[in-house]
Amino acid sequence: MSKLRFGAGIWHFATYVDRYATDGYGEPRNVIEAIDLAGKVRDLSVVDINYPFFGGEFSNAQIKTALERNKLGVIGITPEIYTREFRKGAFTNPDPGIRQRAHELITEAAGVVRDFGAEYVKLWPGQDGWDYPFQVDHGALWKNSLDGVGRLASENPDLKFVIEYKPREPRVHMSFDSLARTLLGIEKIGLPNVGILLDFGHAIFGGESAADSAQMAIDYGRLFGMDVNDNYRSWDDDLVAGSLHPIELFEFFHVLRKNKWDGVWQLDQFPFREDSVATADHAIDFLKAVDRGLEALDLKALRKAQEDHDAITALRIAQKALFGAF
Amino acid sequence: MSKLRFGAGIWHFATYVDRYATDGYGEPRNVIEAIDLAGKVRDLSVVDINYPFFGGEFSNAQIKTALERNKLGVIGITPEIYTREFRKGAFTNPDPGIRQRAHELITEAAGVVRDFGAEYVKLWPGQDGWDYPFQVDHGALWKNSLDGVGRLASENPDLKFVIEYKPREPRVHMSFDSLARTLLGIEKIGLPNVGILLDFGHAIFGGESAADSAQMAIDYGRLFGMDVNDNYRSWDDDLVAGSLHPIELFEFFHVLRKNKWDGVWQLDQFPFREDSVATADHAIDFLKAVDRGLEALDLKALRKAQEDHDAITALRIAQKALFGAF
Amino acid sequence: MSKLRFGAGIWHFATYVDRYATDGYGEPRNVIEAIDLAGKVRDLSVVDINYPFFGGEFSNAQIKTALERNKLGVIGITPEIYTREFRKGAFTNPDPGIRQRAHELITEAAGVVRDFGAEYVKLWPGQDGWDYPFQVDHGALWKNSLDGVGRLASENPDLKFVIEYKPREPRVHMSFDSLARTLLGIEKIGLPNVGILLDFGHAIFGGESAADSAQMAIDYGRLFGMDVNDNYRSWDDDLVAGSLHPIELFEFFHVLRKNKWDGVWQLDQFPFREDSVATADHAIDFLKAVDRGLEALDLKALRKAQEDHDAITALRIAQKALFGAF
Amino acid sequence: MSKLRFGAGIWHFATYVDRYATDGYGEPRNVIEAIDLAGKVRDLSVVDINYPFFGGEFSNAQIKTALERNKLGVIGITPEIYTREFRKGAFTNPDPGIRQRAHELITEAAGVVRDFGAEYVKLWPGQDGWDYPFQVDHGALWKNSLDGVGRLASENPDLKFVIEYKPREPRVHMSFDSLARTLLGIEKIGLPNVGILLDFGHAIFGGESAADSAQMAIDYGRLFGMDVNDNYRSWDDDLVAGSLHPIELFEFFHVLRKNKWDGVWQLDQFPFREDSVATADHAIDFLKAVDRGLEALDLKALRKAQEDHDAITALRIAQKALFGAF
Repeated sequence: MSKLRFGAGIWHFATYVDRYATDGYGEPRNVIEAIDLAGKVRDLSVVDINYPFFGGEFSNAQIKTALERNKLGVIGITPEIYTREFRKGAFTNPDPGIRQRAHELITEAAGVVRDFGAEYVKLWPGQDGWDYPFQVDHGALWKNSLDGVGRLASENPDLKFVIEYKPREPRVHMSFDSLARTLLGIEKIGLPNVGILLDFGHAIFGGESAADSAQMAIDYGRLFGMDVNDNYRSWDDDLVAGSLHPIELFEFFHVLRKNKWDGVWQLDQFPFREDSVATADHAIDFLKAVDRGLEALDLKALRKAQEDHDAITALRIAQKALFGAF
Repeated sequence: MSKLRFGAGIWHFATYVDRYATDGYGEPRNVIEAIDLAGKVRDLSVVDINYPFFGGEFSNAQIKTALERNKLGVIGITPEIYTREFRKGAFTNPDPGIRQRAHELITEAAGVVRDFGAEYVKLWPGQDGWDYPFQVDHGALWKNSLDGVGRLASENPDLKFVIEYKPREPRVHMSFDSLARTLLGIEKIGLPNVGILLDFGHAIFGGESAADSAQMAIDYGRLFGMDVNDNYRSWDDDLVAGSLHPIELFEFFHVLRKNKWDGVWQLDQFPFREDSVATADHAIDFLKAVDRGLEALDLKALRKAQEDHDAITALRIAQKALFGAF
Repeated sequence: MSKLRFGAGIWHFATYVDRYATDGYGEPRNVIEAIDLAGKVRDLSVVDINYPFFGGEFSNAQIKTALERNKLGVIGITPEIYTREFRKGAFTNPDPGIRQRAHELITEAAGVVRDFGAEYVKLWPGQDGWDYPFQVDHGALWKNSLDGVGRLASENPDLKFVIEYKPREPRVHMSFDSLARTLLGIEKIGLPNVGILLDFGHAIFGGESAADSAQMAIDYGRLFGMDVNDNYRSWDDDLVAGSLHPIELFEFFHVLRKNKWDGVWQLDQFPFREDSVATADHAIDFLKAVDRGLEALDLKALRKAQEDHDAITALRIAQKALFGAF
Repeated sequence: MSKLRFGAGIWHFATYVDRYATDGYGEPRNVIEAIDLAGKVRDLSVVDINYPFFGGEFSNAQIKTALERNKLGVIGITPEIYTREFRKGAFTNPDPGIRQRAHELITEAAGVVRDFGAEYVKLWPGQDGWDYPFQVDHGALWKNSLDGVGRLASENPDLKFVIEYKPREPRVHMSFDSLARTLLGIEKIGLPNVGILLDFGHAIFGGESAADSAQMAIDYGRLFGMDVNDNYRSWDDDLVAGSLHPIELFEFFHVLRKNKWDGVWQLDQFPFREDSVATADHAIDFLKAVDRGLEALDLKALRKAQEDHDAITALRIAQKALFGAF
């Protein structure tokens, strides 16, 4: 078996609110409690942590202590540029003062990345975009998106910035909505330290083949990170990985392996009503089967089938390898 | 012009949280503040109020005082059977104790309906359903849905209960997911005081023609209420009515008028980032244009076109009437 | 292993046209050639045959000869009520003469069912519905749908009629669009010999859980037939069964088995660009694995998990049983 | 009023087949008959013509004669690279011989463009893509897409080539699936004579804002053509323009006008069951209202509202201008 490392967004171990269950799906947890839960997951190596740290005032040192006792490292820091202050956008807020505030918050987060020795600042501008026709000047909005990211990347050349695109939510239409548009933007910015974090669920929600999106991001040298989950293709349900679309998930990892992409296999799941540790364990068990499946895949026969675009043969090969790994 | 009455869910005037903006899209407001905002809307006659009253401890008398100073009546009461306690379902919760709690809460809400002289108890079981394949025994789940509603209806024969269906959210799949399924359930319950609240946005989100759904609910004698908003057909965006699908909204009201359905025209909008009073005013202005458009509609020519299924002629008649009303 | 019988729509072995490849995806085949191809599939027992027989003038006797030499029986006959003559509807055509023509064609098809000793007449009214808002009088349209089916069922009490619902295509919105609406209509008709043919792909295309739909159809005593395929949930792609959504397909069959539903497991696939025999063989291999998976399913543990709505445990049990069968 | 020119795909005036109505939605028409129908539409100036000419053997001279008697010019030629021969792809066919055949057919079409003095060769590679996971090597497929278009563009530097993207159909997933991905590809090709034909319906089907897509294509200097129609956002229904999403269509034209884009306003509608001349006339009437609406738009107030991202005010301004034009 290959030497895999698994990770998770620390929010996997938080509790959630939504517009109906305003009192939350469980007792609030702070980031320390979430880290201690993450520590209970078998085979978790790293976490991605929201900044500011949720649930109280915590120093970097306190976070580090909690991480250490749980044998966890930090892969990335996700500045919260989607809370109340940024409800009309972070990079694209109509108010330049708020855009500056977003810049400052992300710059602080960049400091945390350095302090933790993490790999990247994760940008998830979920409030940047629009809701209605005629609401925005589309050219101006896109320019602000790119200027905001570009400024950060050029001010922090020692760090990587990854953009996690999604079609929508919370904004009705997000500015960085798809793989291709995000790549277009990154190429326009033209800096080496901006890349993509590809979320499997966001890709299939947007009607993409996650495998195809991964290949394209890799071909542009921009696949800096990834995470997995599952959904019914019409919303970012953040269900447990492998539950609904195992073969497409398997193809996604096949493309990563084929290109020798060797980053962390991360989870971005929201177990609203489930036990978060059990949900993570289940996903990792699935991912281990995926890994065994990749070892078992008859690559030569697959290549031949793909050269012919022979779907049924290719599918048979893939199903045999993946399901045989269980 | 016909004698219209407009209404709104009182939550239209609240502020919101979601899973990202956990600190909310604005300062929290209590129900009294929301009523005072509702009072600023031109031409609003009635509101639908969540129970328990949000934002504090308020007596029925306090609510009444606030309503009176704003010249507002109450059309319905919506018990909050979708908060933390009910996160795994109200009528279909696996725990019979929670099912009983739901029953008690709704029974309390029924008392408030009586006290306010409102028209109905609104049931919106947004947590009742499932997320994953194999999660539930579908027959048992549906039976619990119907038993729960049926028990309430038979214990409170003096009151009307309306079910507001929606395909999903917050549950990944809601038990009462569509017009037809809800009607099937209501016919199975077999009591006269259970009906449907048809939300235009929920219908088009579910791939229904809201006009067709209205006709069918009316044909079964079960259209007890309705509300409007708009969305991009793939999620319950709760945008301002008429913004995206004006002709379909117009057809919906045409079917109501044709059948002499004369209930309140209600708003169920969530202005996350907009001014709630301006949003309601704009919707009501649109609905007044719809009303004028209905007066202008050449019914004889429309009937002839519909007899021939002549889409282009029918559309021309409808566009002329609606757009001419602006 | 249980005693399974597999079937297929004979169109599985035809070639296709669409609005772009108007010269077809292959050389035209007549029904006899299609039957001979069906005969090459391992383990196929029965077929559903379009009427009139496609590709030439053939007598029932000629069809029987072809079936016999391929050891195939007939499960149903599908009258072609969706061709040019019926482009504006069969049961709901605005022209009463065309409605009568549809009745006559289906009545002829009923004769073929008797002659072949088949199980049912399959009604797939793909042109019945609407395209545009305001195009039709929805109440009148639905009444015509039910009157048309009801007349057939009462004139042919010795036969079963099955309605195969689908959200859309070729009509932009089909009249029999979902499980629940079709059940509502069937209950209104009120005759014992009208039921549903549940197509797994149509169900998930319509946002249904096919397992839930099967349970409900069974609970009403109306599940007269079924077929399987797969799609991306947004169109009736008619891809090979099990390719995209294996767990949901498995749950569908679990519900059938649990209810002791023992009809034929049919294929409704359209291999536009694939070899039709290889595609059918692959699907049947998958269905055999499903059958072995059902034998392996830990029903007691599953029941316990479902009583708790414990999604992760239920999923683990299901994945182990299905994938372990490969 | 501005000086508008209207156009249409000549297929608007053909009859259609699909996989069910294999005998077609009407009597077959040849291209000459279609041109004569197009000539009956009020205010149509140009057409886009499929190549080879459909319905018989016709010389360029015969086509020209028919065009002249109907006072029609030619805007583009659409080589039929999606028929039987190309069912597994044109640019991306696994067979290099078929790829070469596609190249030759398009090269012939380029000659017709020159002969007719048309503006561009339109590339609509509807069979290029994939259906199943694991079916293709995504990197190789995309490379073939770009190589095929690039070769044509470099061999014919005197001509423009426009790519019309669409998410899917007939291929389950098209290679040129979205605005952003097509732009990425065009930038990679790096030639000045490759651009985009933006179809309003394809954009909204893909979850894009057509207005936003137009702005981006213009910002890259690649908006070479456009056409309009409407759909329910989940399929390329090719319904009459303005029927379902008038405000979004209006925003699309607002962006074109604002950027002084002055190409032809084209129709790409498929009136399966409607009179094709009446459908085109209705669409053009709508587009003329759009044009009047653009004149009436309060641009200063709109700009102010957009600077604030004030959706309700912007919507009010837009609705007033568009609907007031009726």
